[in-house]
Amino acid sequence: MGRYEQQRNFLKSNFLEFKHVKTDKIKGLPQPPAVKPYSSSSVIVDLPEFSGDIAGQATVYDCIKSRRSTRFYAQESLRLEELSYLLWASQGITGATKGGLMLRTVPCSGATHTFETYLFITRVEGIPQGVYRYLPVEHKLLFLFELDEIDQKIDAITLEQPFVPNFAKKAAVLFAWSTTPYRSEWKYDISAHKKILIDIGHVSQNLYLASESIGAGACAIGIYDQNLIDDVLGLDGEEEFVLFLSAVGKKRE
Amino acid sequence: MGRYEQQRNFLKSNFLEFKHVKTDKIKGLPQPPAVKPYSSSSVIVDLPEFSGDIAGQATVYDCIKSRRSTRFYAQESLRLEELSYLLWASQGITGATKGGLMLRTVPCSGATHTFETYLFITRVEGIPQGVYRYLPVEHKLLFLFELDEIDQKIDAITLEQPFVPNFAKKAAVLFAWSTTPYRSEWKYDISAHKKILIDIGHVSQNLYLASESIGAGACAIGIYDQNLIDDVLGLDGEEEFVLFLSAVGKKRE
Repeated sequence: MGRYEQQRNFLKSNFLEFKHVKTDKIKGLPQPPAVKPYSSSSVIVDLPEFSGDIAGQATVYDCIKSRRSTRFYAQESLRLEELSYLLWASQGITGATKGGLMLRTVPCSGATHTFETYLFITRVEGIPQGVYRYLPVEHKLLFLFELDEIDQKIDAITLEQPFVPNFAKKAAVLFAWSTTPYRSEWKYDISAHKKILIDIGHVSQNLYLASESIGAGACAIGIYDQNLIDDVLGLDGEEEFVLFLSAVGKKRE
Repeated sequence: MGRYEQQRNFLKSNFLEFKHVKTDKIKGLPQPPAVKPYSSSSVIVDLPEFSGDIAGQATVYDCIKSRRSTRFYAQESLRLEELSYLLWASQGITGATKGGLMLRTVPCSGATHTFETYLFITRVEGIPQGVYRYLPVEHKLLFLFELDEIDQKIDAITLEQPFVPNFAKKAAVLFAWSTTPYRSEWKYDISAHKKILIDIGHVSQNLYLASESIGAGACAIGIYDQNLIDDVLGLDGEEEFVLFLSAVGKKRE
């Protein structure tokens, strides 16, 4: 089978084949952790609480109507409260299944939620530039490290495409979602990977609409240097690797 | 390379490999049609106009907060005006690029929009049960055919999973999105397929939130009988095939 045909086949439902697979779940292997662990000596940043007032009366209708991928931003920084809202809207925890699995603001096949959210923060009020990870259970940020010449690093990661936001002066934060595929493979085996990609689309769209609701704009970015960003974030590139990006900043008037 | 590794690799950015590929676009081959054609003798159904009033003051914040995948529905039918809104929210055309490519209510890599929306309608006021296709340029419906025992057909397509909505009595409409991958392959070649899956997630999430905004609920469905639904819809399964489903109906009080 050629690569083209193989990749097209990847888009199809393989459930009738999958249902005969003995998954790790069926074999009785332990379910992997639902979120990535972190050291108790880590630096944790509190995120402000917010209410629905943060987005005023921004309606679903209006935000769907006006949304565009935004590649040029105002000089204004994001407020930390706004970032708190965007993290909640894209990956926040809003409940649990009867079996104790976390439910989030986004749907996910089997509530397996394979994503971690990394942030390259350049201009958010009240928080130093650097690289952070979202802790959804605590709704806090984990400080990871400062990054020298963060703007140039982001340009390198996004391959300096002319159509990508110019982070050097413009976007306030770059969301970088990784996947830990085994969280889904444990349950879905060869059916996991199609689901993971659709589910990151669910996440990305919530970030688009939540950004729109606070006068900010997002731009999803699928073209990036896989090895470079995985290296920068210290991911092994096999059990966890970056899947998709989105830039956010306040819109120009 | 084993299948697992191959499928994980499919999730990664292959841009650095792709950029050396001579795409059909670069070769000067003609761009495929942006939407599927239809016969001038077809039966066309007008869709009512609507304004933002259709969703009242439903905010992005509230709809993100309250959204859940909905598997049990009220007996109430959807109104045709509501269906018109949901089609617009998920695939409606809202502008064009300078180069004349259609922009929609959802973002899409390179504005290639490879999707067609098929509807299995069981309970929408003012429109007979049957199978339809959305015409985004005209914002109208194309009537395709009646389907005997439509409820049972949908049960068979969704493999009678106990966790799938019971269409026989409950959901009002099943959205079935197909992809025509060449619309993206023409431009992105081997980079197309990852993008297609993320983009259908964008579509699905808009349908979730728009449904929520009118007191309806959606349930994305990734498990289905590929060959059966492609056969029912008359798709060849190679150049066009079903990619993802979502059921919608009014919520129970």
